[in-house]
Order: sequence, then structure tokens, then C-alpha cells
Amino acid sequence: MLRLILSGCNGRMGRAVAAICAAQPDLEIVAGFDLLGTGDGSFPVYSSPAQFQGTADALIDFSSPAALPALLDFCTSRKVPAVLATTGYSPEQLEAIDRAAEKVPLFRSANMSLGVNVVMELVRRAAAALWESCDIEIVEKHHNKKVDAPSGTALMLADAAASSLPYQPDYVYDRHSVRKARDRKEIGISAVRGGGIVGEHDVIFAGDHEVIQISHSAMSREVFASGAVSAARFLATVQAPGLYSMTQLVQQTVSD
Amino acid sequence: MLRLILSGCNGRMGRAVAAICAAQPDLEIVAGFDLLGTGDGSFPVYSSPAQFQGTADALIDFSSPAALPALLDFCTSRKVPAVLATTGYSPEQLEAIDRAAEKVPLFRSANMSLGVNVVMELVRRAAAALWESCDIEIVEKHHNKKVDAPSGTALMLADAAASSLPYQPDYVYDRHSVRKARDRKEIGISAVRGGGIVGEHDVIFAGDHEVIQISHSAMSREVFASGAVSAARFLATVQAPGLYSMTQLVQQTVSD
Amino acid sequence: MLRLILSGCNGRMGRAVAAICAAQPDLEIVAGFDLLGTGDGSFPVYSSPAQFQGTADALIDFSSPAALPALLDFCTSRKVPAVLATTGYSPEQLEAIDRAAEKVPLFRSANMSLGVNVVMELVRRAAAALWESCDIEIVEKHHNKKVDAPSGTALMLADAAASSLPYQPDYVYDRHSVRKARDRKEIGISAVRGGGIVGEHDVIFAGDHEVIQISHSAMSREVFASGAVSAARFLATVQAPGLYSMTQLVQQTVSD
Amino acid sequence: MLRLILSGCNGRMGRAVAAICAAQPDLEIVAGFDLLGTGDGSFPVYSSPAQFQGTADALIDFSSPAALPALLDFCTSRKVPAVLATTGYSPEQLEAIDRAAEKVPLFRSANMSLGVNVVMELVRRAAAALWESCDIEIVEKHHNKKVDAPSGTALMLADAAASSLPYQPDYVYDRHSVRKARDRKEIGISAVRGGGIVGEHDVIFAGDHEVIQISHSAMSREVFASGAVSAARFLATVQAPGLYSMTQLVQQTVSD
Repeated sequence: MLRLILSGCNGRMGRAVAAICAAQPDLEIVAGFDLLGTGDGSFPVYSSPAQFQGTADALIDFSSPAALPALLDFCTSRKVPAVLATTGYSPEQLEAIDRAAEKVPLFRSANMSLGVNVVMELVRRAAAALWESCDIEIVEKHHNKKVDAPSGTALMLADAAASSLPYQPDYVYDRHSVRKARDRKEIGISAVRGGGIVGEHDVIFAGDHEVIQISHSAMSREVFASGAVSAARFLATVQAPGLYSMTQLVQQTVSD
Repeated sequence: MLRLILSGCNGRMGRAVAAICAAQPDLEIVAGFDLLGTGDGSFPVYSSPAQFQGTADALIDFSSPAALPALLDFCTSRKVPAVLATTGYSPEQLEAIDRAAEKVPLFRSANMSLGVNVVMELVRRAAAALWESCDIEIVEKHHNKKVDAPSGTALMLADAAASSLPYQPDYVYDRHSVRKARDRKEIGISAVRGGGIVGEHDVIFAGDHEVIQISHSAMSREVFASGAVSAARFLATVQAPGLYSMTQLVQQTVSD
Repeated sequence: MLRLILSGCNGRMGRAVAAICAAQPDLEIVAGFDLLGTGDGSFPVYSSPAQFQGTADALIDFSSPAALPALLDFCTSRKVPAVLATTGYSPEQLEAIDRAAEKVPLFRSANMSLGVNVVMELVRRAAAALWESCDIEIVEKHHNKKVDAPSGTALMLADAAASSLPYQPDYVYDRHSVRKARDRKEIGISAVRGGGIVGEHDVIFAGDHEVIQISHSAMSREVFASGAVSAARFLATVQAPGLYSMTQLVQQTVSD
Repeated sequence: MLRLILSGCNGRMGRAVAAICAAQPDLEIVAGFDLLGTGDGSFPVYSSPAQFQGTADALIDFSSPAALPALLDFCTSRKVPAVLATTGYSPEQLEAIDRAAEKVPLFRSANMSLGVNVVMELVRRAAAALWESCDIEIVEKHHNKKVDAPSGTALMLADAAASSLPYQPDYVYDRHSVRKARDRKEIGISAVRGGGIVGEHDVIFAGDHEVIQISHSAMSREVFASGAVSAARFLATVQAPGLYSMTQLVQQTVSD
């Protein structure tokens, strides 16, 4: 049985984590942290970490950067490993995380989806094996409300491919304006926007006579909740303090 | 039995047509036209149309615009319908084709692939049914030697969709340079370039909760030879002079 | 402004319809019907149709077959067109619907998704244009809890293709057990099961040198709520009594 | 400059290798072996290996099992590493290859495509990382003349996934005949047959909220010729005798 604390338990992501825990018999939420100090009754909720006197195997945080100081105090003094799934930390906060990680296992990743991180690792390996014979292109698709293009994940995937190349590739976003054949050192990145598409990423390795493609498709934002739970399970097996990440979790499994 | 004349019989496309005819028992090539005046012996080859004294049910031309005057003379005087699969005609030549089509059935299309033309028709119909609820996006993929982007076929598909819309859409080729949500009146067109991809086109209709996609993938350039043979079969059933096109051929079948 | 009655307003699908109406300014829910007789306060809820004394432009029903008699009485006597989005009617109930449709416009469809019905119509047309040159195959993908295979929608798509063929095709579900080349008159239907896939259907037309594919992907069950709202808008434009269906709605738009 | 001998130089695959070598300036074919003893004049052709008196860095064989004894004699006595790209060897012949590999570097693989072998390695790694959260399914597509189903490559991919699982999966080829939910220990394998599709393989990892897919698409049989050339380049860098395979070549690159 893994006993979890859920910080930000009343938010959309917090409720998604709670739903996952309810469905997995070896997971138990022993406490929620939330400014409101109340929940739906399925577990006790505290408005500040210090109020909780029990013990836990790991904490998952989907609250906000403002909650960080109290959380780090709690985790380091009570020796509770934590998955920090909140984004938007300041440089000073990132440093505070680094210092706290010397005392207790902490986990942080820019993208908590297990699948995206597995794909990232596969892309790194595929690029190493195929760069001499294939051109690399990325197509990402998202809903029509997304304002930035390409997606941060598409850029992470391009960087993953680039890390396996013996040269520095050029990222090309628009071929409409030029009339010339593709350069071998390009990575083309195309952004499709439409409807309610949650998020799709295709990394294409196109050779003269064959095409290899690695794709990720998110069906709902619950992938991030699910990834945080996997991270908590991972942290619970780790004894040593340190700053762990999804990339590490994935790589450990993939490299076996 | 359909008796065909093959103009440009020694070129790459001419040989592709000959191979198709050899495999279909009801097709017979009764003559080839080619400047060389010789072939591989499977049918008589003439260096100019006037030299041929026999009869035929249709002519397929994959030669070059330079051959047009002699071909039109031959087809109008001998009453042989013709599929003009050559591209790059001058405006004057297109007018000459129009005039000749008053005397004999002629067939001309910018893209001789049956499949691309069926897709074009499907896209027109899908856009009419889905434009209120879906965003339209096109992704095309071609080999790394192609210098223009997007492909002419992608633009034809965008125009097909646009013809069913009650407004004039904007074609958007690059979302990298702006930070704003998609406008409903956009049609995004992305171009992927890599390896030896012959040609792929996806037309995406993305709604809030569902995505409809119509795709065409060419496996080899023989699709154009095959389309020309279908056009010849179509012409042979047509009695009236006139200028026919692949769109018409497809629409006839699709509308039944 | 379109004034709607929502029958089954407290069910999962009813709430999905209410959410769509809340987001579209020209739609107003003037009443809900539900056995409970209460709702969330955003519109009055009645435990039986007879209690409602107001007027409406259309009714959407996502309740259950048991509610049918009272609904048909209400719709015929009060001249309110109705979208019957409930499934599982008995033969007697279907006859009662037929009779009621002689007095008031009614709408019923086995699959309320606009997109699936558009795809069905596109498949019918594509099959008519491509059957001589292409083999037809269907691949459907659903979540790992679905017990029947292939999906009812896959069979509807196969029937749509078959309706355009000059012969009766054989539906083939397993090629593992035989060692022989594909027969031209087959339609292969493959079922993939995994994870939480909501529903994907690919209809493939494979020719010698090109492949045309028409695909539908559902992202959530709200497609059915959304289709019911489209049907209500359609009914409101129809004056004549009669039994209308999604196929008809789609075909009207597609055939323009 | 890599000097190659091409065994089976007049066959379809032999000519494909010759075309690749002609396009790569650092490759030179110094001799061809073929029963005919003649070629197209671009390099000398010998009807038996013993007749050739020159030296070479590697030999590529796309002939037939019957040529094996003479080839092994030649390679071991003249110390020429060989890529054996022929299939259909008898158990005795495989033993002879093993023995010869003690004296000279030999390379043999059931599928010479670099891409398929990279995909195999990626699938092994993805399965290790995802098996707890994802269902694994494979869909393969081939032309309508292929008599066996599923393809040998689909089975190789299933075996690759299975090698990373802590249990023995069941391969399921038909879900039509049963009415039950998917078992976690299944790997579904679906076979699509149509038109001239050269070969497509999708390995699907379907989770509750995300899908990861690894795909391979062959555009022509030249992928095998191209893979053989890569294998020859690999052999030329290897000094030690031994039996090498495509899996090894790929793994070396992928594991870096």
C-alpha cells in the first residue's frame, strides 16, 4: 500500500489524481492539502501542510508555485519524497528545490506524461540509428485555442533528436516562402491547429525507400495525473535524496 | 476490345501506359507515336501521326506540348478521341484544344490520378457538410528534392474545400511567427519534406469532439498512367465532342 | 433564438447537451424533463411532459425507451418536433414513432454523430468511384472494455461501401487461418482493442499505385450530444411532418 | 573507397544494389558473380567465384541458397567478409554459415531493412517502459497478392515486444468470434490486404489516456538492397570473424 498526500487536491488536476488513486487498490490518499481546507469527504484536507501530523510515502503537488516554500519545509523536515508537478517556478524557487533535493528525494519534469517522455527517449535512439539515411520532420496537432506554435513538446522532441546528431540542425517552420530543395541538416516542424485536438506529435524519419514514424497522441489531460502517480511510485522505491525527473524514470526502464 | 494509340510511347510515362495495357486483356495498343519512330517491337511506332493509316478508339498522349498541333490535326480529321496527359501548354495551345474539342471528344486534367480527383470531390462534399462544426487543415508530404511548397495538389484540395464555404478562407502556411489563436476562416497548409516520399495529402476536418480525415497516398508515378487509361475508357463511351476532365469523370461516378 | 426542451436532462448525455446550449447564444433550454423533477436550477425541470405549459421549437430526448409514450403524446398534441436520440426501442415503439411522424417532424438515427454520418456518405461515394480499381478494407479501434467486435459503426461503414458495389461483398474478419491471396469481392474488417481509445474508424481504398483513406476519430462521447443539437436545428427548419434521420441531414448538405 | 563484390548481380535485388553503388561515390563494384557470366558491362561478371583473382573489402549476396558452398569457400579462403542477404537456407546450410563465421566476418538477417530492424529495437524498449500502462496491438498492411497473414515481420515485432514483458503474451488474430473484453496479456495482430501496398507495420501502445505508436512503411523493395549496403559498410569496419546481424548493427548505433 502506497500512502499519498495530494497537494492542490481540489483543483482539476488534483481531482484527476484522486480519481486514479480511487481506482488503484494499492494507493491510498491519507491527506489533501488545499487553501480551502475542505474537500469532498473522501480524505481529510488541511489548509497548510504543517497541520498534518501523520506519515506518508510520497506527496504529489498540483497546486501552484506559491505553495512551494511550505511544501519544501514539510517534505524536508518530515522526510516525505515529493513529485512537483506544478509549472511556472521562478529561478529562485528552482534553486530552493535543488537545495531541498539534497535532503529528500524530489521529482520534477516539464511534461509529466509518461508516454511523451518515452517517445522522447525513443526519438533520441531512432535519430542515432537513422540520421545518416533519413530526414527528420515533426508534425504536431493541437486545438484551435492554442496560441503558441510549435508546441513546447514538439521543440523538446526536436531537441531530443538533435542531441543524437553529429551536427547542429536548423529548425524550419515554413517552406512556403522559399523555392529550394530540403537541406539535410534541417528538422522541419509543422503545426496543425483545429477543433478540440488534445495533442498529437509525429516524429518522422523519412528515408529513400522507407519511413519510420514515432507518434504520441494524448486523449485527455489525465495523462499528466497518471504520470504523476507513476512518479510517486518511482520515488517510493528510491531511498537516496536527489532531484529525479521523468526522463530518468523512463530511461531506467527503457535501458534495461 | 479498346484499341489505343500511344503518343510519347518511349517516354517513362508512355512505357508505364504500355505496361498497364499489356496487363489488361481488353486493351490493345495499335500504334505508338514517337519522334524516334521505333519502339521495342510490341506495336508499330510512327514518327508522325500522319503516317498511321489505321483506326483507333482513343489516343493517349504523354509526349510534350510541341507535339500538340500534329496530334490535334490527326484527332479531328480522323475522329479519334484523345486524352491529353501532357502538361505545360501555352494559352494559345489551350485555345487550340478548346477549338478542337468542338469536333472530337478531348480529355485534359491537371492531375491524371483518379484517386486525387476522387479525393478532391470528397473534400468538396465534406467541407459542405462540416464547415460549420470543423476547422479545415491540410498536411502534404513529399520527397526532399521537391522545391515548391505547398504542392500544387495541396492547393487544389484547399480550393476544393474553399468552393464549398460561404466565405473566402485565408490559406495559412506558417503559425510559428504569430502568437494568436486560430481564426475560423483559416485553412492551414503544412508541407513536410523528406526522403523519397512520392506524395501524401491529408485533409483534416477537426471538430470539438471528432476529427474526420480524407487522405491520398501515391505509391508510384504509375497512378498517372493508370488515370490516363481510365480516361481513355471514359472517352470511348462518350459520343459527343467536348472537353472532358478527370473531375467530370469522377463526379459522374460519385454522383450516381 | 431556438427554444429547446431537454428530455433526460440530468443524465450524462443530457448534461452534455445542456453544456453545448449554454455555449451557443442562439440556443435556449426552456424546460427539462426528468423523473427527478429537479435540476441544477439553470432551467425549470418537470417530472412529466404534461406539466409543461410553455412552447418550444424542438425537443431533444436522451432519456430511455420507457419515456417514449408520454413524449410522443406531448410532441403530437403540442406540435413540438423531436430528436429521439435514445436507443433500444422495441419494434412496437418503432411503429409508434412511425405513426407519430405522420403528425409532427421526428428525427431518429442509430448514430447521432454528425461526423460518422458524413463519413458514411463519403464512403458510399468513394466506393462508387473506386471499386473497380481498389480493394476496400476497414480498421476500427476501440477501448479494451468493448466486448463486441467489429463495432456496429464499422459494419455500418461496410454496408455503406457495399451499397455502391455491383456485387455482394464478403466481410472477412480473420486472414490468419487461411493461406490464400485476397479475393476482389472481400471487405476486410479488422478490430483493434486497447487502452481508452474512444473510437476510430479507417476505411481504406487500396489501389495498385495509390491509397485513399477516409477516417473518423471520436475524441469524446459529446459528439453524440453535438449531433443531437444539429438535428434539432435541422428539425426547426423543416415544416412537414415525417421521420428524418442523420443520413438525410448529412445528405442534404453533402449533395448541394 | 569500399570495393564490393556483388553475387547475384543480374537479379532484381542485385541490380538494385548496383544502382545504389553507382550513386554513392565511395562505393565501387569490382566484380559481379552470376551464373550467366555476363552483365551490362559496368563491371566484370564471373560465372563462379573461383574465377575472380582480385581483392575486395566485402561481398553482398542476393543470389540463391544453391550458390552458398562456392561463396563460403571463396570468402573463407580469400578473407572477404560477406553479407548473406539470401533467404531460405536449410539447417545444414545455416550450420555451414556458422562454421565459416569462425574464419571470416559474415552478416545474415531475416529482414535486411535497416528501418524494420531499428523499429524492432524501439519496440523492445517501448514495451519495457509501457507494458504496465498500455495494451500492445499490431496492424500490418500488405498488397493483395500476399498469401500469408500476419506477415513474418509482424510476428518478429510481436516477439520483440514480448521479449520485454514479464509474462508470455497470447497473440490474438481474430476478435470477431468472441464476445469478451480484451485480456491484458493479449497482443492483437491484424492483417490488412489491398492493392499494391508494399508493406506497413504499426505497433500500438494504447494507454488509458494516451497512445504511443511506432510505424514502419516500406516504399519499395530497394530498402533491402540499401540495408545490405549498410551491412557491407558495417562489416568492413569489423576485424574479428563472427556472425553479425542487422539487429546487432542497429543496437550498436541505438545504444550509444
